[in-house]
Amino acid sequence: MDFKIIHKDTHSRARCGLLTLERGTIETPIFMPVGTQGSVKSLSPQELDECGAQIILGNAYHLYLRPGLQIIEESGGLHKFISWPKPILTDSGGYQIFSLALLRKVKDEGVLFQSHLDGARHLLTPEDVVRIQNVLGSDISMPLDECVSYPASFEQAQKAVERTTLWALRSKKEFEKRKQGILFGIAQGSTYKDLRKRSINELLEIGFDGYAIGGLSVGEPQDLRYNILHFAIDDFPSGSPRYMMGVGLPEDILEAVSMGVDMFDCVVPTRYGRNGTAFTSQGKLTVRNGEFAHDQRPLDEKCGCTCCRNFSRAYLRHLFNAGEILGIRLVSYHNIYFFLHLMREARLAIREDRFSAFKENFMARCE
Amino acid sequence: MDFKIIHKDTHSRARCGLLTLERGTIETPIFMPVGTQGSVKSLSPQELDECGAQIILGNAYHLYLRPGLQIIEESGGLHKFISWPKPILTDSGGYQIFSLALLRKVKDEGVLFQSHLDGARHLLTPEDVVRIQNVLGSDISMPLDECVSYPASFEQAQKAVERTTLWALRSKKEFEKRKQGILFGIAQGSTYKDLRKRSINELLEIGFDGYAIGGLSVGEPQDLRYNILHFAIDDFPSGSPRYMMGVGLPEDILEAVSMGVDMFDCVVPTRYGRNGTAFTSQGKLTVRNGEFAHDQRPLDEKCGCTCCRNFSRAYLRHLFNAGEILGIRLVSYHNIYFFLHLMREARLAIREDRFSAFKENFMARCE
Repeated sequence: MDFKIIHKDTHSRARCGLLTLERGTIETPIFMPVGTQGSVKSLSPQELDECGAQIILGNAYHLYLRPGLQIIEESGGLHKFISWPKPILTDSGGYQIFSLALLRKVKDEGVLFQSHLDGARHLLTPEDVVRIQNVLGSDISMPLDECVSYPASFEQAQKAVERTTLWALRSKKEFEKRKQGILFGIAQGSTYKDLRKRSINELLEIGFDGYAIGGLSVGEPQDLRYNILHFAIDDFPSGSPRYMMGVGLPEDILEAVSMGVDMFDCVVPTRYGRNGTAFTSQGKLTVRNGEFAHDQRPLDEKCGCTCCRNFSRAYLRHLFNAGEILGIRLVSYHNIYFFLHLMREARLAIREDRFSAFKENFMARCE
Repeated sequence: MDFKIIHKDTHSRARCGLLTLERGTIETPIFMPVGTQGSVKSLSPQELDECGAQIILGNAYHLYLRPGLQIIEESGGLHKFISWPKPILTDSGGYQIFSLALLRKVKDEGVLFQSHLDGARHLLTPEDVVRIQNVLGSDISMPLDECVSYPASFEQAQKAVERTTLWALRSKKEFEKRKQGILFGIAQGSTYKDLRKRSINELLEIGFDGYAIGGLSVGEPQDLRYNILHFAIDDFPSGSPRYMMGVGLPEDILEAVSMGVDMFDCVVPTRYGRNGTAFTSQGKLTVRNGEFAHDQRPLDEKCGCTCCRNFSRAYLRHLFNAGEILGIRLVSYHNIYFFLHLMREARLAIREDRFSAFKENFMARCE
């Protein structure tokens, strides 16, 4: 692995980089479409490629439970199983264990939980979670961490930071046995600045290939999120990729890019796509709305995606009204394209030292 | 329009033809994927093209009710609305009015019914139905007919034949005003041979560009269906395209091809696809079955479609178990490809005078 910063914006802390992994080099700042269960919802790998996806996400927790590791291993790993030869980052699924699973019990040893699918009991240790991602063949693995919801007491948040550090250390040791792909650390600390500082510093002491800021976008007000991010990012080493997990809306992403974050993932483009909400250069558009019944324009007149080159708002509205799957597909496709194209434009703006203006312009158009 | 028979099989009544329409020439015998509401379920027009579709179906009844003619007219017709530049055959929707709509009342004037969508009352005359298809821009229009279910009394079937002839005549007159595309006649007569003879002869007297056999596959036993088809097809002029509506499974299609039928449509490939049932050269395969959990083979080892070139049965089974739309897409795609490929092979077999052997071989493999 190699991470090169190729340009720093002169008016913000945004930066452009190249992260070289075994399966390809990805350009940062980057948006990574989410394929939780081994499919970026409603889209084919070929379509993701057309949209310009350079790396996608999988989820270790989900794939471990279904279809299970044996099937993926027999298939030659996750890449072959889902027919996606480019890099994959796998989330540990810590967040999902804490949000989806039943009757969980967190101990220093690991997490005891019941599957949300069939109620079966599982114990996952940090070592297990690294091994799972090894079997999946992840290009970037994420360690098991403890993510507290908002609001959390200082004591809860502190306990979670301590456990996250302990688990990070054990994850690193397990990872070192095989050194397949690269391993990131995940910083926690809720909205407490001293805990944020402590968490990242403890991770730095262990040493990871990249650093993620976890525990944001978990219900806290937006101002507080930016405030914590702005504060916390200072302690992230500038020579390593910085990943903001689970974020977010285009405006959140651009804000974080301006603070120096390099990597993002979010289910928003496909989740909104399934509900018929399209992201456009003029803001969000609800395809079902009656105002589009006779609208011959594409979703976004400035967009060059297959959906916008071929289909009108009137047709897309009809597809949603008629319950046709093609509607979901087309709006999801457009949204993924929109996010990836936005990042392409953001990278260009950074390289040309006009990222702040680009961001302000985008925000103003979308209001 | 021009219909040329380019070869007749020496051992059966199967024939190969070329039907030239304004938007393209289609090779017969042909299978036409069904896009009832302006979308072949779960597939994009680009994918239909990849699969080799030469003509698809739309449904006048469905599109008239939703999104309504005005929207399609504003879009420049159905082809532009759905982004499919090749030929479209539109079914009149007579069958749907008789099967889906509420409180219908059939009079010689036309059909009075309530929309299955919102209960609104509509009266459609045969003239209306031709005009609707003109607005849609259909390449092949079908007249309103009266399709009786099985079993029907002789008197019911006779009344339906009389009305179908009356409506066919009025449809032809209305069609002559614009002469956009071509118009087929639809023969009825249930399972009564003399009614079948009467129906087609009355249509021949009016004169149409092609002839469809309606009122089969409505619940009658298979033997009876083939018996009626075998008898009825004799009266269809050999120089015109012959269309068997709503048929069917691959074995039904090949049987009808051997009797000299040229055109077919059916929702089977996409309906089965949505349920995870794939058609293969070895018979049907239910993707969800536990036996495929570890199966690394494609759906059909002899198939060259995008699905079979990229994805395993194990992955497809996982997608269905996980409720991922991509599973529906891929099996629907494969099934449409399978039907279209089967017809390509059937045409080749006819041209090489080995259609009967081809058919027997297919039947034997699929048992």
